[in-house]
Amino acid sequence: MAEIQAALAAAEQQYQALAAQQLALDLTRGKPGPEQLGLSDAMDGILDGDYRSASGVDVRNYGGLEGLVEAREFFGGWLDANTEETLAGGNSSLTLMYTVMDLAMNQGLRGLESAWGNADVVKFLCPVPGYDRHFAICEHLGIEMITVPLLDSGPDMDEVEKLVQSDPAIKGIWCVPRFSNPTGCVYSADTVQRIARLPALASDNFIVMWDNAYAVHSLSADATTLPPLWPACREAGTCDGVFMFGSTSKVTHAGAGVAFLASSPDNLAALTKHQSYSTIGPDKINQLRHLRFLQDDATVARHMAAHADIIRPRFEAVLSKLEAELAGEDMGTWTRPEGGYFISFDAPAGTASEIVKLAADIGVKLTPAGATFPYGEDPQDSNIRLAPTFPSLEELEQAMEAFVCCVKLACLRKAAS
Amino acid sequence: MAEIQAALAAAEQQYQALAAQQLALDLTRGKPGPEQLGLSDAMDGILDGDYRSASGVDVRNYGGLEGLVEAREFFGGWLDANTEETLAGGNSSLTLMYTVMDLAMNQGLRGLESAWGNADVVKFLCPVPGYDRHFAICEHLGIEMITVPLLDSGPDMDEVEKLVQSDPAIKGIWCVPRFSNPTGCVYSADTVQRIARLPALASDNFIVMWDNAYAVHSLSADATTLPPLWPACREAGTCDGVFMFGSTSKVTHAGAGVAFLASSPDNLAALTKHQSYSTIGPDKINQLRHLRFLQDDATVARHMAAHADIIRPRFEAVLSKLEAELAGEDMGTWTRPEGGYFISFDAPAGTASEIVKLAADIGVKLTPAGATFPYGEDPQDSNIRLAPTFPSLEELEQAMEAFVCCVKLACLRKAAS
Repeated sequence: MAEIQAALAAAEQQYQALAAQQLALDLTRGKPGPEQLGLSDAMDGILDGDYRSASGVDVRNYGGLEGLVEAREFFGGWLDANTEETLAGGNSSLTLMYTVMDLAMNQGLRGLESAWGNADVVKFLCPVPGYDRHFAICEHLGIEMITVPLLDSGPDMDEVEKLVQSDPAIKGIWCVPRFSNPTGCVYSADTVQRIARLPALASDNFIVMWDNAYAVHSLSADATTLPPLWPACREAGTCDGVFMFGSTSKVTHAGAGVAFLASSPDNLAALTKHQSYSTIGPDKINQLRHLRFLQDDATVARHMAAHADIIRPRFEAVLSKLEAELAGEDMGTWTRPEGGYFISFDAPAGTASEIVKLAADIGVKLTPAGATFPYGEDPQDSNIRLAPTFPSLEELEQAMEAFVCCVKLACLRKAAS
Repeated sequence: MAEIQAALAAAEQQYQALAAQQLALDLTRGKPGPEQLGLSDAMDGILDGDYRSASGVDVRNYGGLEGLVEAREFFGGWLDANTEETLAGGNSSLTLMYTVMDLAMNQGLRGLESAWGNADVVKFLCPVPGYDRHFAICEHLGIEMITVPLLDSGPDMDEVEKLVQSDPAIKGIWCVPRFSNPTGCVYSADTVQRIARLPALASDNFIVMWDNAYAVHSLSADATTLPPLWPACREAGTCDGVFMFGSTSKVTHAGAGVAFLASSPDNLAALTKHQSYSTIGPDKINQLRHLRFLQDDATVARHMAAHADIIRPRFEAVLSKLEAELAGEDMGTWTRPEGGYFISFDAPAGTASEIVKLAADIGVKLTPAGATFPYGEDPQDSNIRLAPTFPSLEELEQAMEAFVCCVKLACLRKAAS
């Protein structure tokens, strides 16, 4: 106990010293830093007056709800889907996801009778910890969220299969299959196979929302790859029950990328029909810019390696600080992702809110505790999502110094109380 | 009667001659031609590596649901609204309109209790002839459409006021106030004043959907101007009941412009809250490109004069053909717009479908008869929308030769039967 008191005193002292520094740091934002954005600055001007796509489309004019055929082919490849199974959209995959969920809920993917909203209760499976914006869509549309544990291999598939077979109100599941937000896990081959078969086990109009946001976003060339879902869906005959998403938001310019989606041609037809009420078509000039800039798989790989070179030191800075200060201390566990934008930190139960508050009080903004759970409620009050990419390396090191101090302080205060 | 028979024989002969030419022409598309699009080709590359807005925003990154503050100020000016009353969005004003209608219908502008959809029947006023995509939004959302006549001064306001006062199920009205689609009329000062007061006469949560699509799109510098709506709304205290829309789709590149919207700050807050579920923000790079390219009002005026120089001869070609062949023939009337993208042709009652079919059969595509009415049903079967901008002048002259022949043929066949 004296040992704890001594450690606590040291932590309190360090905390006061940090407070005196009047920090203004932010570890919340899963967005690229300026150096990363600069990798794509050649995009503006890349068309050089040539606004015609390879297939002869004048990209300046209206039209083409599905996007440029070349963009559909190129980005379809990122999802292992064919051109006619792929739609290239505007600057936000979140918009595509919302549109699919809104359509399925309110208008129905197979006509009004198929709308989930016809039932009194609609439920969705949410592997946790997960992405707050997925959960927000469900909440906004009045869809009840059922959590399932996210393991290192992906969602706990025993639990998932049991639930979808026992409750016909469950209409889908959110997945971030590679470098999952926030743990960074990559779904295993077994998980991918079982996800592919899931719509066949579930009730009618069940859909897998496969948000492959980090498809090409690895920290090194030998990072774990994701077994392809789509061929498995073809084999299982479940393509109507799966929507796959991706974007270049963290490849080129975050706010001005190209989002894309792949699913069965029937689903694409339902979706473009729905979209025809709200748009004349996506920005095809920006799609053409992306095609000219990203060119081919080898160019993309080189470009993503340049991103990795910029963000790898930031991930390492976070991890080495956690290792150095917290390893073997029973003050939390954390993930060591091979890609993506986040490190997931699990503090001892009941301390996450306190850690986030302590950090905020000395000028270090962390993602709110609970944000990685539906309704913002982490039943363990444990998970904290760390986003290392946006701050400079120096800022990041300062922020981690403060973070680790806040973790210690919260844990030691609890132990001493 | 012999005279009619002779004229009919001549028309039949000309029709056969046109059929032999195997035309493939299109008068349906209200979109800019390639020469117009070329006026803005300098936009790609205009940033010259400088991705920072005047207010210091790195436009490459995520964020900013309301759009760049400079874009809000600039485009707000087109709608006589302040920066804080304006939102700059993506490439489609139709998307903004759909979002507002969807929000008002399903989630409510003032919380769930205010959602129109809580009532069994929701109605909207549709001045006719009008814009098919406005009507399609209503139909898709399950909103019943009530037509009111569009006069030269705008909607028949006596009728509009009577309806909104007598039927609380009426929740709004569509307006294209300057160079209305398709007649080209410009709302009069009296109409604008009465529209501004309309929300105060109507039931709760009534909204004016003011689609100012052709705000700066006149064919000459001395075209009729639109009296500003927004100051009148401020005076009437009705800003919460009005949404104004515009875009650069027919200013810069049609598929890659910037759309914008203005309304009360409360409405903007409700809208951005709703949008926060479906997007991280609009493409700010494209907004900055537009600001750098369009610069100021004088530059916009010069740019639009260059558009007018390209499309004026096309409008004149259509009108001079109609004058030359149909004036004083009791075979239809037509509008002479001072701007916008359309000429509205009213054929004798009961002949529009036949004219469109006759034209299609010899390779001239016209907007389907009825398209300018809700549910595609023109009770008079009279209105045909002509879109002169996209074809070349030569194609347009051929198409008008064929159109006029089809009008004569349909009218003479009817007279002879």
